[in-house]
Amino acid sequence: MRITVSLTDNRPEPWIKALRDALPDAQVEVWAPGAPQADHAVVWAPPQQLLDEQQGLAGIFNIGAGVDALLKLRLPPKAKLVRIDDGGMAVQMAEFVCHALIRHFRELDVYQEAARDGEWTYRRPRLRDEFAVGIMGMGVLGQRVASAVQQFEFPVNGWSRTPKAVDGVRGFAGAEQLGDFLAASRVLVCLLPLTPDTRGILNKTTLSQLQTGGYLINVARGGHLVEEDLIPLLDAGHLAGATLDVFQTEPLPSEHPFWRHPRITVTPHGSARTLREETVAQIAGKIRAMARGEPVAGVVDAARGY
Amino acid sequence: MRITVSLTDNRPEPWIKALRDALPDAQVEVWAPGAPQADHAVVWAPPQQLLDEQQGLAGIFNIGAGVDALLKLRLPPKAKLVRIDDGGMAVQMAEFVCHALIRHFRELDVYQEAARDGEWTYRRPRLRDEFAVGIMGMGVLGQRVASAVQQFEFPVNGWSRTPKAVDGVRGFAGAEQLGDFLAASRVLVCLLPLTPDTRGILNKTTLSQLQTGGYLINVARGGHLVEEDLIPLLDAGHLAGATLDVFQTEPLPSEHPFWRHPRITVTPHGSARTLREETVAQIAGKIRAMARGEPVAGVVDAARGY
Repeated sequence: MRITVSLTDNRPEPWIKALRDALPDAQVEVWAPGAPQADHAVVWAPPQQLLDEQQGLAGIFNIGAGVDALLKLRLPPKAKLVRIDDGGMAVQMAEFVCHALIRHFRELDVYQEAARDGEWTYRRPRLRDEFAVGIMGMGVLGQRVASAVQQFEFPVNGWSRTPKAVDGVRGFAGAEQLGDFLAASRVLVCLLPLTPDTRGILNKTTLSQLQTGGYLINVARGGHLVEEDLIPLLDAGHLAGATLDVFQTEPLPSEHPFWRHPRITVTPHGSARTLREETVAQIAGKIRAMARGEPVAGVVDAARGY
Repeated sequence: MRITVSLTDNRPEPWIKALRDALPDAQVEVWAPGAPQADHAVVWAPPQQLLDEQQGLAGIFNIGAGVDALLKLRLPPKAKLVRIDDGGMAVQMAEFVCHALIRHFRELDVYQEAARDGEWTYRRPRLRDEFAVGIMGMGVLGQRVASAVQQFEFPVNGWSRTPKAVDGVRGFAGAEQLGDFLAASRVLVCLLPLTPDTRGILNKTTLSQLQTGGYLINVARGGHLVEEDLIPLLDAGHLAGATLDVFQTEPLPSEHPFWRHPRITVTPHGSARTLREETVAQIAGKIRAMARGEPVAGVVDAARGY
C-alpha cells in the first residue's frame, strides 16, 4: 500500500514518520508532481495537481475537521474524502468554549480590568439559568462541547441540520426551528461545518434573535459570520460580546477593527489544533478498516458539504 | 421554633424572607442584643455577644463554607456548628478553577496580550499529560473540582487529611504523603479548610516541590499562603504563575505587589459566592432533619477545625 502526504503549512517529516510507525506495511512518502499512484492521501490544503494526478486514490484523509476548502477542488472519482472525527480536538474545543463561556458569565474579564487598577470590587452574581447556551452543529465536537457545558449546569440547546437526540440538550433542527433555537439561547457557539447553507449564518438577522445580552463564540469558520454585522450589534448593546477564533481573512489583518474592539476577544484560529499522535492513530485505523472492506466514520458527503 | 439571623455585611431581609418561606412554622427574626432565646442561628461573622446570649442554640448555620473565623469565637455549649455543603458553591468553584487552569494551560492570557498588539501568533501546543492538577482538600468542593478537571482529561491528584478514594483521582493523604503529592503535580489548587495544621501550608518549601513551571490556584483562605514566599518563586521561574482569590488581608490593600505582578491574577474573593436560594433550602432541610433527630452533614468538628 502506498500513501502520499501533502501538508501545506506543516512540516511533513514528523507526520511521515508517525504514519510509517503506525502502518509498517505501507510506503509513505511526501507527494511531488509525477509521484507514483498512491492508494491513500493524507492532506492539508493540497494542490489541485495532486488530486488531478492521483486519480486512483481510495481515501483522502484531511488532518483538520473542516473540509470546506477541499470540497472546492476537483476530487478523483472514487476517492472517499474522510474527516478527522476528533484527533484530540474535541477536548480542546470543549476547553476553549468553556473558558470563553465562564469568563463571560462570571465577568472575569471585568474583574481583570478592575485588577489592573488595583480595584477590589464585587459584581452581583448572575443567574446560570439566564445564560442558556445554544450550540450550532451537534457532531462529535458539538456533543463534546455540550457535555462540558452541561457539567457547569448551564441550560443547553442544540441546533443541527437533522434532529439529534442528545441527553440533557434541548434539540432544534433545520431552518424552520432556527428562530426558536436562537430565541431560547443567550450564548451562541458556532461549530457548524462551512457549507453553502451555513455560509453567513451568523448575521444581523440571526444574531438579533438571540436573547438580549447575547454572546457569540465562533470556533468554526470565518465564513459563518457576516463580519460587518457584528460590531453594530455590539455597539447597540444587543450583544454583550464575542470570542472569535476564525475570520474571513486569516491571519486577521492588523488593521481589522475586531482586534481592538473592547468586547471582542480575538484568538488566532487555535481553539483546537490537530494533534499528530491522535490523528495518525485515527487515520491508520481507518485505512486498515477500509482495507478490510469495513465502513469508516467521517466520510464526507460532498452534496451535504461535510 | 425560633431562628435568629445575624449576617454581617449582608442585607438580612431577603434571607429572613427566604427562611420564612422555607420554614413556615418557624419564627425567623434578625438578632439584636437581648433577643429571645432561639433554637437555631443563621450567621455570617456573628458578634460574640450573640453567642454569649444565645446559650440554648441547637444549631448554628454558617452561610459560607469556611468556619475558621467562627471557630475563634466562644460557642454555646450544646450548639452544633454546621457548614454549608454546597449551596451552589461547588459548581462555581469548579468553573472558577477550570477557567484559571484552561487559561494557563492554553496560554490564553498570552494570546490576549498578543491580541492587544494586533499580533496573530501561534504557540506550540502543550501536552495535557504534563499538567497534572493537584487538589488539596477533597471534600464536597474538592471532589466537584476534581470531576470538572478530569472531564478536560488532565491527570488529577488529590491530597486530604485522611485517605479518600475518588474515581480517577490519584490519592495522597496526610503530612507524610504531602511531598509525593506535590512532586506529582504541576498545577496546585488549594481548597483546604483553614486550620492550625493548614495555615501557611503554601510556602517556599512546599511550592518548591511542585513540578517546574508550577501554577498555584488558591481559592481557600488567604492564611494558607505565606504571601512573601510567592513572588520570589515566580521571579526565579520555578512557578509560572498564580491565580489568587483570597488574601491575608481582604480587601487586598491597593499597594500590595500581587495586584500588579504580571504573572499573578487577583480576584476579589469571588470564586464561589453563597447563593441564597440553595443555601436556605439546605439549611431548612437540615433544621427539619435535626427536629426529627436525624444526623445532618456538615457538622463541624471543632478539634479538627472544619
